[in-house]
Amino acid sequence: MARGKTSKLKVISLGGLGEIGKNMTVLEYENDIIVVDCGLGFPDDDMLGVDLVIPDVTYLEKNIDKVRGFVLTHGHEDHIGALPYVLKTVNAPVYGTRLTVGIVANKLSEHTFREKPVLNAVKAGDVVKLGCFSAEFVRVNHSIADACAIAIKTPVGTVFFSGDFKLDLTPVEGKVMDLTRIGEIGKAGVKLLCCESTNVERPGYTPSEKKVGRSLDGILSRFPDKRVIIATFSSNVHRVQQIINASAAHGRKVAVTGRSMINIVKTAIELEYMKVPDGTLIDISEIKRYRDNQLTIITTGSQGEPMSALYRMAFSDHDKVVLGPNDLVVISANPIPGNEKLVGKIINELFRKGVTVLYDALADVHVSGHACQEELKLMHALVHPKYFMPVHGEHRHLITHKRLAEEMGMEENHIFVSEIGKVLEIDKDGARFSGMVPAGKILVDGYGVGDVGNIVLRDRRHLAQDGLIVVVATVDIDTRELISGPDIVSRGFVYVRESEQLMDQVKSIAKDALLKCLDHNITDWSEMKGTVKDDLSKFLYQKTKRKPMILPVVMNV
Amino acid sequence: MARGKTSKLKVISLGGLGEIGKNMTVLEYENDIIVVDCGLGFPDDDMLGVDLVIPDVTYLEKNIDKVRGFVLTHGHEDHIGALPYVLKTVNAPVYGTRLTVGIVANKLSEHTFREKPVLNAVKAGDVVKLGCFSAEFVRVNHSIADACAIAIKTPVGTVFFSGDFKLDLTPVEGKVMDLTRIGEIGKAGVKLLCCESTNVERPGYTPSEKKVGRSLDGILSRFPDKRVIIATFSSNVHRVQQIINASAAHGRKVAVTGRSMINIVKTAIELEYMKVPDGTLIDISEIKRYRDNQLTIITTGSQGEPMSALYRMAFSDHDKVVLGPNDLVVISANPIPGNEKLVGKIINELFRKGVTVLYDALADVHVSGHACQEELKLMHALVHPKYFMPVHGEHRHLITHKRLAEEMGMEENHIFVSEIGKVLEIDKDGARFSGMVPAGKILVDGYGVGDVGNIVLRDRRHLAQDGLIVVVATVDIDTRELISGPDIVSRGFVYVRESEQLMDQVKSIAKDALLKCLDHNITDWSEMKGTVKDDLSKFLYQKTKRKPMILPVVMNV
Repeated sequence: MARGKTSKLKVISLGGLGEIGKNMTVLEYENDIIVVDCGLGFPDDDMLGVDLVIPDVTYLEKNIDKVRGFVLTHGHEDHIGALPYVLKTVNAPVYGTRLTVGIVANKLSEHTFREKPVLNAVKAGDVVKLGCFSAEFVRVNHSIADACAIAIKTPVGTVFFSGDFKLDLTPVEGKVMDLTRIGEIGKAGVKLLCCESTNVERPGYTPSEKKVGRSLDGILSRFPDKRVIIATFSSNVHRVQQIINASAAHGRKVAVTGRSMINIVKTAIELEYMKVPDGTLIDISEIKRYRDNQLTIITTGSQGEPMSALYRMAFSDHDKVVLGPNDLVVISANPIPGNEKLVGKIINELFRKGVTVLYDALADVHVSGHACQEELKLMHALVHPKYFMPVHGEHRHLITHKRLAEEMGMEENHIFVSEIGKVLEIDKDGARFSGMVPAGKILVDGYGVGDVGNIVLRDRRHLAQDGLIVVVATVDIDTRELISGPDIVSRGFVYVRESEQLMDQVKSIAKDALLKCLDHNITDWSEMKGTVKDDLSKFLYQKTKRKPMILPVVMNV
Repeated sequence: MARGKTSKLKVISLGGLGEIGKNMTVLEYENDIIVVDCGLGFPDDDMLGVDLVIPDVTYLEKNIDKVRGFVLTHGHEDHIGALPYVLKTVNAPVYGTRLTVGIVANKLSEHTFREKPVLNAVKAGDVVKLGCFSAEFVRVNHSIADACAIAIKTPVGTVFFSGDFKLDLTPVEGKVMDLTRIGEIGKAGVKLLCCESTNVERPGYTPSEKKVGRSLDGILSRFPDKRVIIATFSSNVHRVQQIINASAAHGRKVAVTGRSMINIVKTAIELEYMKVPDGTLIDISEIKRYRDNQLTIITTGSQGEPMSALYRMAFSDHDKVVLGPNDLVVISANPIPGNEKLVGKIINELFRKGVTVLYDALADVHVSGHACQEELKLMHALVHPKYFMPVHGEHRHLITHKRLAEEMGMEENHIFVSEIGKVLEIDKDGARFSGMVPAGKILVDGYGVGDVGNIVLRDRRHLAQDGLIVVVATVDIDTRELISGPDIVSRGFVYVRESEQLMDQVKSIAKDALLKCLDHNITDWSEMKGTVKDDLSKFLYQKTKRKPMILPVVMNV
């Protein structure tokens, strides 16, 4: 199709709207598609056994010939984590800053591909041309180094993606968010702003990362004799840098534990995102050679993750670190909603060991990486877009962000609160919603991608709730005889050894049901099974108020 | 045994230490036992399918002849909820204030007893003699009306239970916590203080309940045209009273929805704990007759409970209330740790309906019912006990409370951080830990009390994680022949219709395993089953990285 007056830009988020995680937005113009971010999400509580959630990319697979590339704002899981899965069917070049593609490369190495994905490192200020689009990376501050906003020039005007950001006027490494460049881009005219909404409910400004550095320094001064263990997000390179700096200043060696922490520190040092004073870093196996007051240990597990290094320390299961009353554990993170109990469990266990613990409520040991209301307003003021689509948030965040934009004078009909799969169409005449494309959650469980869906989850929830009872019998359908059984096997229902009477009753009811069918010449398998199921369900609910899954298996000889 | 110099008071908590909920403490002296509170707990996330948790009362059952009675501090579930279960085996008279025993009576009516439990209503100031003990009820403030501390005179001195409390100098109904009487009891000498620890991590004072009243009034003024729906804890009678007062002042009728809310409001009005201006309360079925700005609806569901009235409204499943853009929903509660996501889900759904929502972060619509640090110090100062045992909290709360007491000058060896079942012994010579009695968690699932334990839960977790595969076969053990099967049934493992090849492989591996056994004259059932299990597990893990439960059922004809 020739580029004509009727050509439209389509903006389609395949994730990140009305949900936390799996951020991914598609821009399409005629024969070109560019994809911003490709993140994963974590399973809801009712997605039993599911490891992670990725976006449904059917739309990209169907338009594979158009896809010119992926541009990444930063290296957090919720922005890059689905790449190893998506690149298997939608292989296109990937662009991101050095740390971002370094982390992606690490991830891809654990997967196999028919054709090796191409990763391209860029730096803030670079412009990448992809089909009719050109994407400019613009420096922002965030809780991971080397994060960018991305301004994408399209034939209908510029689309500005804020990425995840905050304004840090005293960043630990690198520079302040490039306000000037954002302002210039805004001045030149921005058609659409896609701005993150994580902290839109919080007034004011997010404090500088440096604040945590000062707190950590204060803590080391207050506890000069203790061994200090600090748990934080492994991807927060600047946080780790500050821990190293503060430790070195107090004459402490630093050891690192936890797989992802070791990986990221290694990558960050290699890529020169982290500077470690000579001789400061030691291997975790060397800690025995030092006194407590000469040691800081940086660890994973700040979200209470079972089997993380901190969890293993707390539950006396770490092979190198044995905790006791001369240890101080600092949890330098806030629990993500849903993780409060896990973190609480670790804290209680640490108290049991006599460890001193500093955490959220009790100390200034964490700041957010996301913009609060005033910073969001700053973004809106600088970009000054014609249209606005809030992204990166649950529905309530998107709506609250809409109100914030209205408060700044934007007209309501210029703001588009979208949902995943919904097409926002922009052309010279304006912007409007126009139809839907396939979008949703693809569940990853082990090696399986997409083979766990609603039916499997419903069964898992049923099994989890009240367990199951298997009824097995062999019949001779010709002679209408019960040959053997019924045998009853139960799991997750009751403690069988103490419920013999109940299990005997189950057996006898199942037997009666089968004989009833055989006597009445009911030889249809599903009817026979249905009778067993119904009779047992009724009995068990009345007896126990539980509804175990009942699985009758009837075999014919 | 005659009361001699060697007689000791035993203080044993059967719940509430190192955990949230199921508060219950036993005092024993020679032939007398008195029990303070008898609460339930809610299941941990890994207690799949469990409805609630009650204390193990084996110790009381064994000493049933000594038990003189239960004294209750207040009517919250975590202080009274286990009574219907415990009274079945440990039937002794129950003492509590009118509202407390009113709520207990409601609960007991849903259970059957061989002998009807005896409930006795007391009022603050009353003293109840039970064996060698005499228990005095002392008024405190809390988020439920008619809450008391209990001072128990024992032959070795007074034991003071704070109950759950806060200091509210401007309570909504009734009076300020009886500081004078607490001081008098303290002055007369208290041997042991058992003080709650819920908010021990929070500095300062908890604000007065009246603050919420002012906020609610302000909200009604700000939104004069909206219909207002307010969700809160049904047991918070004073909160409900304030909602009614503010509504009446703004010329609004009040309707109540949600089973427990309707029950409590009814009970509270009957017992005169609540005063409703004439004509203010209407039935929920009458709301159609009024304009939006004439209505306030009070509802359950402030914790996001699925199937609560607020949940049903949000998901368009409430038969009387249909929400829309002219509605304002106020969530007058903070999510209890673990409930954040449930509450968030409702809030998002309300936003989708265009409802205006006010909640925690955005409005002063809730205050805690528990003492913060300065109020706890006040309790310590007034009671001025010789010994102190922090209760009602996870281990970290108990330890933090211990430090607070030390800060107030208490000697470390006078403070006893205990655990459930641990015996604190007090006599003329002092106090010390001395042995353990049985204690633990009894799980209630449907009608079953205690029939779900570790094995059942382990199976439920296994089933929840990866589902199950049942392998059924009939063999003739004499002729070493496979007569029929193996049939494969799976649930919660993979979506079978799209995994035919995999299921065929499963069948063929199971068959091979069975034939291998028969060929090798292995006729031991458990060995045969073990072979099927091992071969399948290995195959499935390698193929899917999942570990479904494998249940082989082999029958002989």
